[in-house]
Amino acid sequence: MAGNSFGSIFKLTTFGESHGAAIGGIIDGCPAGLELDMEAIQNDLNRRKPGQSEIVTQRKEPDTVEFLSGLFEGKTTGTPIGFIIKNANQKSKDYSHIKHVYRPSHADYTYEKKYGIRDYRGGGRSSARETACRVVAGAIAKQVISSIEIHAFTSSVGDIFLEKPYQALDFSKIESNIVRCPDAEVANNMIERIKSIRKEGNTIGGTVTCVIQNVPVGLGEPVFDKLHAELGKAMLSINAVKGFEYGSGFCGAKMTGTEHNDLFNKDGSTKTNLSGGIQGGISNGMDIYFRIAFKPVATIIQKQNALDSEGNIVEMQGKGRHDPCVVPRAIPIVEAMAALVLVDFYLLNKMYN
Amino acid sequence: MAGNSFGSIFKLTTFGESHGAAIGGIIDGCPAGLELDMEAIQNDLNRRKPGQSEIVTQRKEPDTVEFLSGLFEGKTTGTPIGFIIKNANQKSKDYSHIKHVYRPSHADYTYEKKYGIRDYRGGGRSSARETACRVVAGAIAKQVISSIEIHAFTSSVGDIFLEKPYQALDFSKIESNIVRCPDAEVANNMIERIKSIRKEGNTIGGTVTCVIQNVPVGLGEPVFDKLHAELGKAMLSINAVKGFEYGSGFCGAKMTGTEHNDLFNKDGSTKTNLSGGIQGGISNGMDIYFRIAFKPVATIIQKQNALDSEGNIVEMQGKGRHDPCVVPRAIPIVEAMAALVLVDFYLLNKMYN
Amino acid sequence: MAGNSFGSIFKLTTFGESHGAAIGGIIDGCPAGLELDMEAIQNDLNRRKPGQSEIVTQRKEPDTVEFLSGLFEGKTTGTPIGFIIKNANQKSKDYSHIKHVYRPSHADYTYEKKYGIRDYRGGGRSSARETACRVVAGAIAKQVISSIEIHAFTSSVGDIFLEKPYQALDFSKIESNIVRCPDAEVANNMIERIKSIRKEGNTIGGTVTCVIQNVPVGLGEPVFDKLHAELGKAMLSINAVKGFEYGSGFCGAKMTGTEHNDLFNKDGSTKTNLSGGIQGGISNGMDIYFRIAFKPVATIIQKQNALDSEGNIVEMQGKGRHDPCVVPRAIPIVEAMAALVLVDFYLLNKMYN
Amino acid sequence: MAGNSFGSIFKLTTFGESHGAAIGGIIDGCPAGLELDMEAIQNDLNRRKPGQSEIVTQRKEPDTVEFLSGLFEGKTTGTPIGFIIKNANQKSKDYSHIKHVYRPSHADYTYEKKYGIRDYRGGGRSSARETACRVVAGAIAKQVISSIEIHAFTSSVGDIFLEKPYQALDFSKIESNIVRCPDAEVANNMIERIKSIRKEGNTIGGTVTCVIQNVPVGLGEPVFDKLHAELGKAMLSINAVKGFEYGSGFCGAKMTGTEHNDLFNKDGSTKTNLSGGIQGGISNGMDIYFRIAFKPVATIIQKQNALDSEGNIVEMQGKGRHDPCVVPRAIPIVEAMAALVLVDFYLLNKMYN
Repeated sequence: MAGNSFGSIFKLTTFGESHGAAIGGIIDGCPAGLELDMEAIQNDLNRRKPGQSEIVTQRKEPDTVEFLSGLFEGKTTGTPIGFIIKNANQKSKDYSHIKHVYRPSHADYTYEKKYGIRDYRGGGRSSARETACRVVAGAIAKQVISSIEIHAFTSSVGDIFLEKPYQALDFSKIESNIVRCPDAEVANNMIERIKSIRKEGNTIGGTVTCVIQNVPVGLGEPVFDKLHAELGKAMLSINAVKGFEYGSGFCGAKMTGTEHNDLFNKDGSTKTNLSGGIQGGISNGMDIYFRIAFKPVATIIQKQNALDSEGNIVEMQGKGRHDPCVVPRAIPIVEAMAALVLVDFYLLNKMYN
Repeated sequence: MAGNSFGSIFKLTTFGESHGAAIGGIIDGCPAGLELDMEAIQNDLNRRKPGQSEIVTQRKEPDTVEFLSGLFEGKTTGTPIGFIIKNANQKSKDYSHIKHVYRPSHADYTYEKKYGIRDYRGGGRSSARETACRVVAGAIAKQVISSIEIHAFTSSVGDIFLEKPYQALDFSKIESNIVRCPDAEVANNMIERIKSIRKEGNTIGGTVTCVIQNVPVGLGEPVFDKLHAELGKAMLSINAVKGFEYGSGFCGAKMTGTEHNDLFNKDGSTKTNLSGGIQGGISNGMDIYFRIAFKPVATIIQKQNALDSEGNIVEMQGKGRHDPCVVPRAIPIVEAMAALVLVDFYLLNKMYN
Repeated sequence: MAGNSFGSIFKLTTFGESHGAAIGGIIDGCPAGLELDMEAIQNDLNRRKPGQSEIVTQRKEPDTVEFLSGLFEGKTTGTPIGFIIKNANQKSKDYSHIKHVYRPSHADYTYEKKYGIRDYRGGGRSSARETACRVVAGAIAKQVISSIEIHAFTSSVGDIFLEKPYQALDFSKIESNIVRCPDAEVANNMIERIKSIRKEGNTIGGTVTCVIQNVPVGLGEPVFDKLHAELGKAMLSINAVKGFEYGSGFCGAKMTGTEHNDLFNKDGSTKTNLSGGIQGGISNGMDIYFRIAFKPVATIIQKQNALDSEGNIVEMQGKGRHDPCVVPRAIPIVEAMAALVLVDFYLLNKMYN
Repeated sequence: MAGNSFGSIFKLTTFGESHGAAIGGIIDGCPAGLELDMEAIQNDLNRRKPGQSEIVTQRKEPDTVEFLSGLFEGKTTGTPIGFIIKNANQKSKDYSHIKHVYRPSHADYTYEKKYGIRDYRGGGRSSARETACRVVAGAIAKQVISSIEIHAFTSSVGDIFLEKPYQALDFSKIESNIVRCPDAEVANNMIERIKSIRKEGNTIGGTVTCVIQNVPVGLGEPVFDKLHAELGKAMLSINAVKGFEYGSGFCGAKMTGTEHNDLFNKDGSTKTNLSGGIQGGISNGMDIYFRIAFKPVATIIQKQNALDSEGNIVEMQGKGRHDPCVVPRAIPIVEAMAALVLVDFYLLNKMYN
């Protein structure tokens, strides 16, 4: 109920504040007998971690995961997998200036009104630091559904868009640059844009596109738990996300039926794929693809007005080491959430066969 | 798990196929002692029902709800509210032509592959007919949270957009025209567009905007069950929806932090509201607003190719009485799903106080 | 949350009051393609229904189930199965005498205090009438797990006990007498006891034993959802149940480890079965057996004191046609709840293979 | 689904094997603003911990809980409370003798058959060590519902019974002796019995009685989630439990209605309390009391036959430091599980008011 669990069968529950002793989680329902590729897990964590390049926050966190249970001689045992990531970088003094201040477009105000108390250090629970736990669980989920391929990449930064359709892209190039856009030229433009925005002490939004390939037919449940509804919820639960569209998305709302219908090939595949790989909430075997909007990070290194707990408007300036654009580090988080949605439906589907 | 329930505390579970004896549902967790306004419930059903105007399907269904339990002398008793809506219009013969045929961009193929069997009459469970049950439950939810105001309206049909910001609209005009757009001139254009598309035997997409006002601060759970994530899931679970954005949405992804941050007033309200009434997944008391993309209805009254269960491409033509544009009838469904999300968080929040 | 659902994968949600229009339910998650044996379902309902013999209530209810969805051409389709049982026998006038009265050892008082309102006719939702819906769902569950055999029988009425171990009984004799005890002589004594208690206007308690055979190894989840914990909850949720024990039960608490340990045979079976077919919450392939205590029915046809809503002690006398002993009609309910527990773990276990 | 979570609103999820790095858990849904009494939590852990007296296992574990999140300046913040208890005493060598052996009446066989793999060290996940996490969560739950009093005590060891009704006992004496029986004389007999059984290398069963006082009217949900059904499930989920009865329990099954009905006093309380404080699954304000049967511990320090993974019967002898009787250490576990059930219904009930 309180919103710290995701999934029904392969279920992740997480805990942890930005500046507590550790963050961590429990994965319940991971199938037994899986030999975990620890390097792959740490690799996804490294793709998310701060300090990895000049266009992300320069905060340093090693983000090393420690598994406490659920594994025996390197294999999953079917029992819950408990893990923690210690918070190496607890500079609480950095945050004394916001103790009594609600920063604009942060969750300070809503947390305090909801709970009557808040851990103000670094955003506490509302910090995107919690997404590291999602990445751990997602990296394990990917190993359970290893035949399914999930690729996310940066498709826009501000008004710089990657215009090519995903079919024209080489996904092996995503990790070849620090902004994680598979087109080198567009990537350079994006990187320059982020560098210049950072110099201004400002931040900028962007979009991520995710493509899921080799999905078996039949994943997803009709009516309320449609595959795309769960994907949408998963993506919207990531910090800073403002929108989600799949297949034809908002463009589809401008089209006619004759333009939009995907005609079949004899093997059940379709000639076009405006549906985005899902019909009636159930995967049809075609590529699933969707796009996610991220707003600009709220912490800017400029003076702006904030509200204090006494009802006064006070001037403040962001300190610390924040991201000028959240998108490059969001890529592994998007993949992780996609994997968590898919693994749940994948396991559920085994019960029907 | 199988996806026919929505909500945690105020929980709706539905059943029913388009051409079975009846559709219906159970609402579990409705607070006791509520004197139900039956007229309001039937009114919402009437706004959704087929045959209500010349721009929707001409199928006739009275869509009368019968309550079987959970009420005593007009009041809710705290026990589950069971209800049914009889299917008056079971013309099964209309559907014999699709018995062995998978229609393009319908769920015929995915249902049959998932379950190995399908009730082909009128789309069976995948028919939007099931949304009538959502409207019943949503109409009751609205009465539980009666101080919260929910207004949905048609904001585009094809490329005809209602450009005015919602603040410039008079919501009392929404029901004054058959397309449910509160601007008379734009409404007329939309209606003409739908009429002309219908004449072609074609269909067209559109968008719905929903505005929720007078929301208490503190609704929504952080991390996975953020208020907008649940709203997104709720909307994406409606048939034909392809996208969801709230607050600044996809536009926000093009903005900078200085443009996007909502500065506070002294009373905790904000000068702008690009956040869309939600910070960190929790309502902040400002208006919540979001936009939903609906694809064009897949059934067109033109010849097109389909796939049969033997793997042959066959020519078919839509029969029956279908909607040229789903948006006008989707308005009460959008409101109902919004109400179901809000009532759940509203009741949950009472536990924290 | 509000307690009207049972099961996770094969999930039953029920509604309905004793004297409303109908009771009913929705089964979500029943596998597709199952050809339902309707006669078997009605047969289990008949074993539960009132008026079936001279030792049960003489109320007459046909208890005919109508399926509204989830079936197509006699087979399950994987979509939710909605069903209703109409209340034929709504003699509301019978209950006007308890409108303002809380009967002793009934739920009148607790419902009114919890909800502030109650449907006083026939106990409303607290009536055992709701168990008819459990029997419908259980009868379907039995068909999903058809290789597993579930036999419940009356093992005591008052102080008349069936002393033989279940291995010495012939389960095919259970239905050969109206008290549902497989030993003819003991059955006769039980029947005489119930007849004499009825003549006094009194009621009497009893126990039911249930034996489940041919259970695959591996059903049940460790820690909180142990197989016997779910069976216990299922049985304790039946009206009038006061206790549950499995395997050695309360006798086991008097034993020593050397007496109690079940030594293995080479094939993994055990020489004794004090464990009751479950180790660590997981079935081990041996027979599962448990015993359930039912209290005497609270409605007696004698004068007794009750409390009215004004705080006065008033004299009342049970009217209507109540059961002198609940146990004979409880047999199919116990079987149904056992089947619902097993089918859920059975389907869940398919995920692991 | 996989069974490592308990509760709906105040939800505990646990992880950890007997000989892994640590055990731990996450409590999601604890109300914010509660100043935690850390000493009370550690005190309950100390009551459960091994090595505390001469009648329990002599294994030494400090069982110190470390909280990693959800607290700020000593108060709960409404975010998930993550905690770990390090396993100080990982003598894995002790268990090499059971690597390929299934011990009788342990979960070795069922875990290996279910998962295809097992962590054989100390029983792994099936070890009662996981109950330490329940005690942590239960100790916090007690603080949330601090007006409700929960007292569990040893009511029998083997055939030595505490015959006095609970009303004749002084609960403040429970902790005055090492067997946790509030009657000094009976306690001495129990202690002697356990000492003598330990000398034989044998073990013995027993029962625990739990009394819950000062419970508000209205806790519990009708039909499937009756208060006593959840209490039953909670208790049956504790290792070694074989039975549960509440109120009149199995004795009630021998009684008549006139004997069993609890007549009202004018204030809504009842003259007798055979109902055990619950009517129709809902608390009525009277004392709730129940009794739980624990089997004798399966590990005995005597030679006995076991099965190896090749299908051979092999002779083995329990090593290590096991409990001769589980009951004295089970007392805080029973209280913890009772508190977890109550806190959930307590918070849920706030929704109705």
